[in-house]
Amino acid sequence: MPAPALIGLDWGTSTLRGHLLAADGSVLETVSRPWGIQHLPAGGFAAALEGVAGPWRSRAASLPVVAAGMVGSRQGWREVPYVSCPADAATIAAGVVAFPSEAGLLHLVPGLSQARPLPNVLRGEETQIIGAIAHAPALAEGAVFVLPGTHAKWVDVREGRITRFDTFLTGELFALLRDHSLLGRPAREAVATSGAAEPSPVAFSRGLAEARDSGAAGVASRLFAARSLFLTGDLAPAATLDYLSGLLIGEEVRSALASRGGRPPSPLVLVGDESLCARYRQACEAFDLPSPAWVGDGAAAGLWEIARRAGLVTTSSTGPDRSSAGR
Amino acid sequence: MPAPALIGLDWGTSTLRGHLLAADGSVLETVSRPWGIQHLPAGGFAAALEGVAGPWRSRAASLPVVAAGMVGSRQGWREVPYVSCPADAATIAAGVVAFPSEAGLLHLVPGLSQARPLPNVLRGEETQIIGAIAHAPALAEGAVFVLPGTHAKWVDVREGRITRFDTFLTGELFALLRDHSLLGRPAREAVATSGAAEPSPVAFSRGLAEARDSGAAGVASRLFAARSLFLTGDLAPAATLDYLSGLLIGEEVRSALASRGGRPPSPLVLVGDESLCARYRQACEAFDLPSPAWVGDGAAAGLWEIARRAGLVTTSSTGPDRSSAGR
Repeated sequence: MPAPALIGLDWGTSTLRGHLLAADGSVLETVSRPWGIQHLPAGGFAAALEGVAGPWRSRAASLPVVAAGMVGSRQGWREVPYVSCPADAATIAAGVVAFPSEAGLLHLVPGLSQARPLPNVLRGEETQIIGAIAHAPALAEGAVFVLPGTHAKWVDVREGRITRFDTFLTGELFALLRDHSLLGRPAREAVATSGAAEPSPVAFSRGLAEARDSGAAGVASRLFAARSLFLTGDLAPAATLDYLSGLLIGEEVRSALASRGGRPPSPLVLVGDESLCARYRQACEAFDLPSPAWVGDGAAAGLWEIARRAGLVTTSSTGPDRSSAGR
Repeated sequence: MPAPALIGLDWGTSTLRGHLLAADGSVLETVSRPWGIQHLPAGGFAAALEGVAGPWRSRAASLPVVAAGMVGSRQGWREVPYVSCPADAATIAAGVVAFPSEAGLLHLVPGLSQARPLPNVLRGEETQIIGAIAHAPALAEGAVFVLPGTHAKWVDVREGRITRFDTFLTGELFALLRDHSLLGRPAREAVATSGAAEPSPVAFSRGLAEARDSGAAGVASRLFAARSLFLTGDLAPAATLDYLSGLLIGEEVRSALASRGGRPPSPLVLVGDESLCARYRQACEAFDLPSPAWVGDGAAAGLWEIARRAGLVTTSSTGPDRSSAGR
């Protein structure tokens, strides 16, 4: 096994994921703990860091540690100023802040901010995208990266730089409607009565199609149809959630296309959880978009690339094996 | 005082409002109780009915009782079949169901359903609109009634008939975002720390303007700006809620106009709570729409009109004084 050269932390709101990396960027070990910044263990940030990185540092005490994500936010351990868009791996690496924490030196990756077309910020996704580009350098020339999730991001990359990004509340709105709204009640009652809900691909497709066909009006007046279609018996209780999921993901795609002048962004690259990305792949089909590429978790490769540019690791003489690193 | 001739109940999800009406349609007394169908007192529906109507019936035992709203829904006391659109006061009155409850005979007003342009249902708003038309018969020729609230309705009336309606989750989405989402957290923390939040008309106007200018993309990617603008210091914690309110009401207006081919509906009539309707009036200004008319609670006049057409009251020889009844 190659010698360890870097500890990379992907430290978000709900999860802390640590990667032990070699000098060529390959991932030697990965651990995942439910210690996001909103769910820290007793002892707080320092205990979480020690819990993940301690065993690795006991083997090689001088390993540098680089961390990306919400750990660098105002609610995190230490706030790191945003880097303005457009930004590339070099400007992001230049924004890395060395933070002498009580549990050792930590190098924090900055998030990105933009003023136009809308004021917006992100933290963590910049590292995912740098990682995806490290795997497939051709994407740096021009691509739109879609990162589904609680706050889904559409990130435009042109000539190696992140030029623009949009945030959609898709995942959070879905959870709010499912857990707290009148629309989610039939499914909640069905789950309470008979256990897990049966997924309905047909209802999901119907939601996607209606969002696509809603034109400039969007889905604002269609969300309530999840209620009407349940009352008229057209949708089973659990299917109302798949229908809502289709409407909300469809609205995200519809709106993202409209704000880019209706032109299909190409290539489109899905980043993240495979099953969630499969829903977005289906949305792309419904909107007659070219089939998107998919990359899984790009954080390890992104952390390594940023650390390399920040001078935290000296790469092996053969250079990183980008075709397989971190996958 | 004229003799009582009718008890009219506006019985919704959260409130039961009772009106004692004379034969000419004028309102003699009104009581309001927090006994919506989701908040019944001990003794359930019968106790609620007795609590509101009992004192009036002890004076005149044979008074007919008519009730509109969610009391006639599947979650209500007795489900009343929907009447299909297009519908007018006569077809709605023909759908009234006599329900011999344990607390006496109750005449339940049906809600409305439509299959196009989207499957949709309503209960209670049909009575509000019939009441508004009774006050201002010219509106029957053609108007769009907007009823703001948890599930806001836009109801098109043409040649005396309700031809179409749309439902927007505006009020429920606002409450979900305020009470449960990351976007609402700064305002929740500010209220917890320093009490009531200071309203920000500027932030509300900004939200309206951004929704108007969002074009076909809509506000899907703008909601998160409530977070970004807070993080950058552009919006104070409490102002984030006014900004969100502007975005959501603006999206409702933008979508309603787009789904009607972009033509401003005229005349536009706001129905309901005065302060909420004032927000919609401001939205109409932001969208350069003609200034809308406003009618307050039309339920009493609508209940009387439906009861009259259903033969439950014999009108006084002079006819109802429509200019002041129920206001």
